[in-house]
Amino acid sequence: MTLIAPSILSADFTRLGEEVKAVENAGADWIHIDVMDGQFVPNISYGPIVVKACKQVTDLVLDVHLMIETPDARIPDFAKAGANYISVHAEACPHLHRSLQLIKSLGVKAGVALNPATPLSAIEYVIDMLDFVLIMSVNPGFGGQKFINASLNKIIALSNMLSDAGSNAIIQVDGGVNNDTIEAVTRAGASCFVAGSAIFNTPDYKTTIDGLRKLSDKGKI
Amino acid sequence: MTLIAPSILSADFTRLGEEVKAVENAGADWIHIDVMDGQFVPNISYGPIVVKACKQVTDLVLDVHLMIETPDARIPDFAKAGANYISVHAEACPHLHRSLQLIKSLGVKAGVALNPATPLSAIEYVIDMLDFVLIMSVNPGFGGQKFINASLNKIIALSNMLSDAGSNAIIQVDGGVNNDTIEAVTRAGASCFVAGSAIFNTPDYKTTIDGLRKLSDKGKI
Amino acid sequence: MTLIAPSILSADFTRLGEEVKAVENAGADWIHIDVMDGQFVPNISYGPIVVKACKQVTDLVLDVHLMIETPDARIPDFAKAGANYISVHAEACPHLHRSLQLIKSLGVKAGVALNPATPLSAIEYVIDMLDFVLIMSVNPGFGGQKFINASLNKIIALSNMLSDAGSNAIIQVDGGVNNDTIEAVTRAGASCFVAGSAIFNTPDYKTTIDGLRKLSDKGKI
Amino acid sequence: MTLIAPSILSADFTRLGEEVKAVENAGADWIHIDVMDGQFVPNISYGPIVVKACKQVTDLVLDVHLMIETPDARIPDFAKAGANYISVHAEACPHLHRSLQLIKSLGVKAGVALNPATPLSAIEYVIDMLDFVLIMSVNPGFGGQKFINASLNKIIALSNMLSDAGSNAIIQVDGGVNNDTIEAVTRAGASCFVAGSAIFNTPDYKTTIDGLRKLSDKGKI
Amino acid sequence: MTLIAPSILSADFTRLGEEVKAVENAGADWIHIDVMDGQFVPNISYGPIVVKACKQVTDLVLDVHLMIETPDARIPDFAKAGANYISVHAEACPHLHRSLQLIKSLGVKAGVALNPATPLSAIEYVIDMLDFVLIMSVNPGFGGQKFINASLNKIIALSNMLSDAGSNAIIQVDGGVNNDTIEAVTRAGASCFVAGSAIFNTPDYKTTIDGLRKLSDKGKI
Amino acid sequence: MTLIAPSILSADFTRLGEEVKAVENAGADWIHIDVMDGQFVPNISYGPIVVKACKQVTDLVLDVHLMIETPDARIPDFAKAGANYISVHAEACPHLHRSLQLIKSLGVKAGVALNPATPLSAIEYVIDMLDFVLIMSVNPGFGGQKFINASLNKIIALSNMLSDAGSNAIIQVDGGVNNDTIEAVTRAGASCFVAGSAIFNTPDYKTTIDGLRKLSDKGKI
Repeated sequence: MTLIAPSILSADFTRLGEEVKAVENAGADWIHIDVMDGQFVPNISYGPIVVKACKQVTDLVLDVHLMIETPDARIPDFAKAGANYISVHAEACPHLHRSLQLIKSLGVKAGVALNPATPLSAIEYVIDMLDFVLIMSVNPGFGGQKFINASLNKIIALSNMLSDAGSNAIIQVDGGVNNDTIEAVTRAGASCFVAGSAIFNTPDYKTTIDGLRKLSDKGKI
Repeated sequence: MTLIAPSILSADFTRLGEEVKAVENAGADWIHIDVMDGQFVPNISYGPIVVKACKQVTDLVLDVHLMIETPDARIPDFAKAGANYISVHAEACPHLHRSLQLIKSLGVKAGVALNPATPLSAIEYVIDMLDFVLIMSVNPGFGGQKFINASLNKIIALSNMLSDAGSNAIIQVDGGVNNDTIEAVTRAGASCFVAGSAIFNTPDYKTTIDGLRKLSDKGKI
Repeated sequence: MTLIAPSILSADFTRLGEEVKAVENAGADWIHIDVMDGQFVPNISYGPIVVKACKQVTDLVLDVHLMIETPDARIPDFAKAGANYISVHAEACPHLHRSLQLIKSLGVKAGVALNPATPLSAIEYVIDMLDFVLIMSVNPGFGGQKFINASLNKIIALSNMLSDAGSNAIIQVDGGVNNDTIEAVTRAGASCFVAGSAIFNTPDYKTTIDGLRKLSDKGKI
Repeated sequence: MTLIAPSILSADFTRLGEEVKAVENAGADWIHIDVMDGQFVPNISYGPIVVKACKQVTDLVLDVHLMIETPDARIPDFAKAGANYISVHAEACPHLHRSLQLIKSLGVKAGVALNPATPLSAIEYVIDMLDFVLIMSVNPGFGGQKFINASLNKIIALSNMLSDAGSNAIIQVDGGVNNDTIEAVTRAGASCFVAGSAIFNTPDYKTTIDGLRKLSDKGKI
Repeated sequence: MTLIAPSILSADFTRLGEEVKAVENAGADWIHIDVMDGQFVPNISYGPIVVKACKQVTDLVLDVHLMIETPDARIPDFAKAGANYISVHAEACPHLHRSLQLIKSLGVKAGVALNPATPLSAIEYVIDMLDFVLIMSVNPGFGGQKFINASLNKIIALSNMLSDAGSNAIIQVDGGVNNDTIEAVTRAGASCFVAGSAIFNTPDYKTTIDGLRKLSDKGKI
Repeated sequence: MTLIAPSILSADFTRLGEEVKAVENAGADWIHIDVMDGQFVPNISYGPIVVKACKQVTDLVLDVHLMIETPDARIPDFAKAGANYISVHAEACPHLHRSLQLIKSLGVKAGVALNPATPLSAIEYVIDMLDFVLIMSVNPGFGGQKFINASLNKIIALSNMLSDAGSNAIIQVDGGVNNDTIEAVTRAGASCFVAGSAIFNTPDYKTTIDGLRKLSDKGKI
């Protein structure tokens, strides 16, 4: 199973409803919502108001990536706005187990996002709680970056770690995922792919998503 | 002169472009953009991406209210995205003079926003730099609050303070401004009025804005 | 009216219930509870668990002085534990109006505490919300300090400020209040006196409290 | 050797001295003192004043668990108040080696506490300094939680890690330790058990402590 | 009396001893040491090690301006290194009275520095403790700024405020003080002048200092 | 290859230029510059101004060790001042990959510094970016400490880790490196040695550096 998750960060915000509907019609599986607070990362993007707007127009999974400090204080807002999946950053969560517990207590699927330098030991003792793991393959909140190759080894190691633990958690990858990289990323073990400009900056979303899916399929063989 | 500044916080975000265009056509003077980071205030709203979207569809003044920590780090992003006016909170700016200097150096009009409890002495030594002052008449970032009556005395005192200093800075008011309060607020000395749900939750924006403007006019006599 | 508020910071914590009962029987009016978090002030004292213990044994007013960072997050715990009065520090509250609103919304009397250097302008626009003002006449959280004489002028100025505003807020004083200072402090305009070691380190609480009250009475004439 | 460490968080604070004496008489080995600052964890409990009160009435080991930010600033206060063992949280100590050095320099036994999600690699290079390790089997500072089963694997791994390093550090466990879990926790390798309500909310402390000890003994075989 | 205080920020740091000696021989009254921590201001300059180096070569007053967060933690280091005067920023001191008390307890003269936007009410209740007040006439820690004209009114107001209080505190001014501004600044009421590049970037320190002193003298008449 | 890197923290700051020149003439390989901000570590040392001064007098590698919070904000200043190598602390960098990327983008060699307790997993996924790794063998920012023996095992493990990854990153050691320890440290795998007082507190720098180099050579066999 390949999950394509367009990030609306690259959508046209004057007509967000249409954009979300368009990627849904083009075969997107999840809608990825990048939440940045200008503190954990050096940019402010958007919050629950945008999750709520997406919810109004689509039944797709809303997958909310919290690139924020002190996420526990804001998680209930995102759950209420309609988030189906929420990931928090290990680097922002001294009480990571509690943050995941909170997400799950609200009926939302829980994930941990890991910055490029963060080791997998950060999630060793919460694997049984995880619905997904988000491997950042660029540094979150900074623009114009290329796929970090060291991410491939991390995805392979994570894949083994999850197998060993009997976990079915989805491996999601965000950053520089495109036609050039998706096959290798799939081969390493990922099955959910976040793509922003690689989708929204192309003229025909369906062709793009189909193309990504086909290349991902090649990585599975 | 009365300036009506609809806050898009209450707009329909699935079709933000249309909403902004609609209030422009209905006679709005400024578009007010409430930026919240979840740290200075307990909510995350949106950042430069939404300023940029507004810029694409309107030539109205984009008036950006930064309810954020460490605003200096983010001010250039907002200027680049198309902000015409930027206000920072005195409570978040230990180097307030520098923050205003930075805004002005980017060719943007500069204002200071004051929380309900913050005294006017906070702006005493920067009056000559101010294009506007934003008096918060509710607590920023918290929903469902009524107009704080003590704000009227603050507006009167500010009005006198500006006159004494020979300043033409605009007095802007945000929070609970509606048909019941706008006349008194105008009488106290304000001329720019932020209104969110009081505009966007009504069926006919033009009727609403005209109504607010008329009631404000009564306060000038 | 003179209110004597023994601070349990100097009580014998092995038998707190008895100590509270003893000062109640000795004629104390309020029980003053100094909450320190080791961050706003360089000491950790105690929290809701101690408020709750006091509530079990006395019907006196429990007056909770929050010397803590981000008090809004903890105020509900103290209200639930039985606090009747809660004061927050202006220096720790960028959203002071909101903090007071929160206290009052929980059915608790609200006050603002001011550090020795903090000017009265800090409360100028929240006077109508105040049930009491706590003037610190030593630096909170540091031991072994003497009454700061500049506090007298501040109390006099506050007294005038409250009169001018038609406020009945109580002026409470904390720090170095004892037989040598209480008359002057009363004369300046205070009516509620916090005393810790000046009460608990004496052999007969009743004699001590009666003595303080008498000296305070002299200040009223 | 089984060490039962009643946490006074569940004791009757109106008569703390009696409560401490009662668990001592009931066979408790250590008195566990949970220090929370409302910043590292969302609750404020108590500080040195309570350690000092315990010291007045008992000769048992006072075992102080610092759930606080910037513990180095407060460690000397706790040492002076009578702490015999102090644990700091790895998540709150960027200079963990230094924090342990500081504790030991004051003649106090030093431990590291690990949140449920924190990996054992956090203590890999300080094992030789450790007198004990505190494995949190619930999230510190949050009420009403159950024993986290993933803790058992962590205790087993820690037990091996200590053996390999030739360390005699005690493994202490805190959270959800009761008649249902103590046998398994002992079997995993722990020998010191913190219990709060599981002791103080029972009518006869001696029966309870004896019961816990017996069940723990079963885990040793 | 005019005090010229060259700031070594503009000295040649390869031979600091000679530079300090040179301005001493040229008639400087104080040596001004700008301490920046990269947190309170966006630059790191230097700390006690440089104070100590100055102490080795001169008997002039060492005047240390702490542009740092949490100064109380570092004040003893600067006192020990040889500081004769220490100023702290009101904006960095929630417990300003305590910070001043600490400086004085170490036998050092105490001052408060005020950012350009900070009102004089910040020092209203600590005037009796002040040996000097530092009025920033540029924003601290940012380069290439001109003298802020609004500072003149602040100096005049401060001068009156000190007279009214019977205080002999010295008014020190830092930022853009040079041949063009020193006369007006003196006339406004200042008597101690910090100058960095205006002294160290000139070929003959004595001529420069004499020139500044003469221009200052004109402002006194 | 043995690299001796004298730390100017122990140099005579009245004549820094001479001191730097003296160690250069004595055979030093790098100049080590310890930057402390008083926040990440409890001391303030110096910043770019001192790097710039060193650059004026020597062509040796300037190796800047940033013991500071939020280093990304200051890295460009140090690059511009002439740093050739910059290390950041893993404990201060939630976005470690990004910090290294930033250093390298400025044409500077990049390293990670690890506190004594920090595990090697912190650098597992950035090895390919590293020009050097700084193993702290004392706690940074605290004076008067001895070499921590557990560092030897860490250096051995790091050495293996780098070999396995095919990395040529230099292993640098800082803290307690002197005649008694340098042989063992070299044997463990380090090749770059920071020494402060061990060099600058001796009468003849050349003899000292030669001596260290010879002892290090013994560790290579």
